[in-house]
Amino acid sequence: MDKIHSAYFFLELAGTFAFALSGSTAARQRGLDLFGICAIAFTVACGGGIIRDLCIGAIPPAGLTNWYYLVAALTASALTVSFFPIVQRVNHPVLLFDAIGLALFAVTGAQKALSYGHNAQVAILLGITTAVGGGVLRDVLLNRVPIILQKEIYASAALIGAVIVVLGNYLNLSSDWVAIFSLITCFTIRMLALHFHWNLPSSATPSSKEKQEE
Amino acid sequence: MDKIHSAYFFLELAGTFAFALSGSTAARQRGLDLFGICAIAFTVACGGGIIRDLCIGAIPPAGLTNWYYLVAALTASALTVSFFPIVQRVNHPVLLFDAIGLALFAVTGAQKALSYGHNAQVAILLGITTAVGGGVLRDVLLNRVPIILQKEIYASAALIGAVIVVLGNYLNLSSDWVAIFSLITCFTIRMLALHFHWNLPSSATPSSKEKQEE
Amino acid sequence: MDKIHSAYFFLELAGTFAFALSGSTAARQRGLDLFGICAIAFTVACGGGIIRDLCIGAIPPAGLTNWYYLVAALTASALTVSFFPIVQRVNHPVLLFDAIGLALFAVTGAQKALSYGHNAQVAILLGITTAVGGGVLRDVLLNRVPIILQKEIYASAALIGAVIVVLGNYLNLSSDWVAIFSLITCFTIRMLALHFHWNLPSSATPSSKEKQEE
Repeated sequence: MDKIHSAYFFLELAGTFAFALSGSTAARQRGLDLFGICAIAFTVACGGGIIRDLCIGAIPPAGLTNWYYLVAALTASALTVSFFPIVQRVNHPVLLFDAIGLALFAVTGAQKALSYGHNAQVAILLGITTAVGGGVLRDVLLNRVPIILQKEIYASAALIGAVIVVLGNYLNLSSDWVAIFSLITCFTIRMLALHFHWNLPSSATPSSKEKQEE
Repeated sequence: MDKIHSAYFFLELAGTFAFALSGSTAARQRGLDLFGICAIAFTVACGGGIIRDLCIGAIPPAGLTNWYYLVAALTASALTVSFFPIVQRVNHPVLLFDAIGLALFAVTGAQKALSYGHNAQVAILLGITTAVGGGVLRDVLLNRVPIILQKEIYASAALIGAVIVVLGNYLNLSSDWVAIFSLITCFTIRMLALHFHWNLPSSATPSSKEKQEE
Repeated sequence: MDKIHSAYFFLELAGTFAFALSGSTAARQRGLDLFGICAIAFTVACGGGIIRDLCIGAIPPAGLTNWYYLVAALTASALTVSFFPIVQRVNHPVLLFDAIGLALFAVTGAQKALSYGHNAQVAILLGITTAVGGGVLRDVLLNRVPIILQKEIYASAALIGAVIVVLGNYLNLSSDWVAIFSLITCFTIRMLALHFHWNLPSSATPSSKEKQEE
C-alpha cells in the first residue's frame, strides 16, 4: 500500500497545482496585481481544506502549515505571470488535473472528517466543501456568482465521491480500495460531464445568463 | 416546560424552512442550477449558526450535524424547482416564518454563546450573527450587497432580541420566560417594521440605489 | 518596557479606529443604512483578527470579546454619519493611521500565531491575514474586487513586517525590539508606497480596470 500513498501524494500535488493554476489564471484575466494573483491561487488551492479543518477542529488548518499548497500557489502564479499565452493554451491538461484535484479533495475531505469522529452527514458535506470551497472563494473574491453554482456537473461529482467514501466506511470496507474506487468514479463523472457538456437542470433565463458572462 | 421545548422545535423547523425558502427562491431567480439552489438554501438555513459555532468552539457546527437543516434546504429547493409560481405567490407567509426564524435564531444564538461561558458582548454579537449571517452569505454568493445592510429593520430586531437574552441572564431571570419575551419582542418589531415600512436612517443616493436593483 | 506596551495600546486603538473609519466611509458612500455602516466598520476593524483567531484556535476571537473594536466601530460610524463632509476631508491623517494599523496588525498577528506554537509559514500567512483580512471582507460585502488584490503596495508591506517578526523569533532576538523594528519597516514601506505611488506589476488592461471603477 506504500505505492498507493506515494501515488496519492503525487496526485495531490498535481491537483493542488491545477487548482492554483485556475486561480492565478482567473486573477490575471481580471487584472489583479502580483500579490492578488498569488493570493487567489493560494485561496483556490487550500480554501476548501481550511474551511473543512475549521469545521472539524483540525487546528491549525493543513492549508496553512503544509508547504506544498504555498509552493503550488507561487509556482502557478510565476508561470501565469511569465508565460501567460502558454498557460492559456494548456487549458485541456489543466481541466484534467483539475478533475483529479476535485476527486482527490472530495475523497480526502470526507475521510478526514470521518477520521476526526464526525458523522456521515458532516463527512459528505465537508467532502464537497473541500473539493469546491476554494473555487467558490475565488469567484466571491473576483466578484462574480460562483460558476459551480450555475452550471456543469462539478460539485455533484464531488458529492458522489464523498458518498462512496462514507458508504465504504459504513460497510467496513478497506478504506484504501474504497478511496481508489471513489476517486475513479468521481474523476470519470467529471470528465464525462466535461466531454458531453452535461448540466444539471437550471432555470437560467437568457437575460440572467448574459449578465454573468463577461 | 416540556411543551415549550416542543414548541421551540416546531418554531425552529418553521424558521429554518423559511430561511431555506428565501435562499432557494433567490437562487432560482438568479438562474442557478439544481445544486446551486440547494447550496444557497442550505447556506441561508445554517450559515449564521455555523459562523457562531466556529466562534464559540462548538465543533462540529450544529448546522452540519443536525439533519433538519439539510432536510429543510432540500425540501425548500424541491418546492422551489417544482412549484415556482406558487412559491412566489406565498410571499406573505414566508415573511411571517422568516420573522419567526429571525427571532428564534437571535435568541438561541445568544443563549448558546452564554451557555459556552462567553461574555455579554460575544453573546449579543453572535446572536445577531446567527440570525442574519445566512442571509448575508446568500447575498455575497449571489454577488450583491447584502440587503440587510441597506434597508429595513431586520438585524436591529435581532440585536434587541439578543440584548434581552443577555440582560435576563445578567439579572438571573428564568431563561425560558426571558426567551419567550425576547422572541415575542423581536418578532413583533420585525412584523411592525414590515407593515409600516420602517427603515433605519440611510445615506442612499438615488444613483447608488439604482445600481443595486436588478 | 511598560512604556512600550502603553504605546502599543494607543497605536492599536488608533489603527483600529482608522480601519473602522475606512469601513464606515466606504459603507456610507455605498448608501448603506445605519446598521450596515456599523457592521462594515466593525468588520474592517476586527475581521482579519477573527479569521486569525479561528485558525490558531484562540476561542472566542479577540475581536468579539474586546470592547475597543466595538467602540472604535461605533465611534467611527457615528462620526461618519454626523460629520461626513469633515470625515471625507481628513483622508490624509486616516491614511497615516491606516498604515499604523496595517503595521501593527501584521506584527501582532504574526506574534500571536507564534505564541500559540505554530510554525513560521502559519505566522507569516496569518500576519498578513490579520492586517488585510478586514479590508478584504469589507470589499466582498460591498460587492467589489478587494482593492488590495489589484494595486498598491499594501499586503506586501504586511508580508515584510510578518517575515521580520518570524526571523527575529528564529534568531532568538528580543521580541520587543524586533516588533519595533518590524513596525517601523512595514509602516515606512507603506508610507513610501503611498507617496511615490508604488505598485506591484499587474496585467490590468484598460477594459478590466474600467469595469472595477465606479
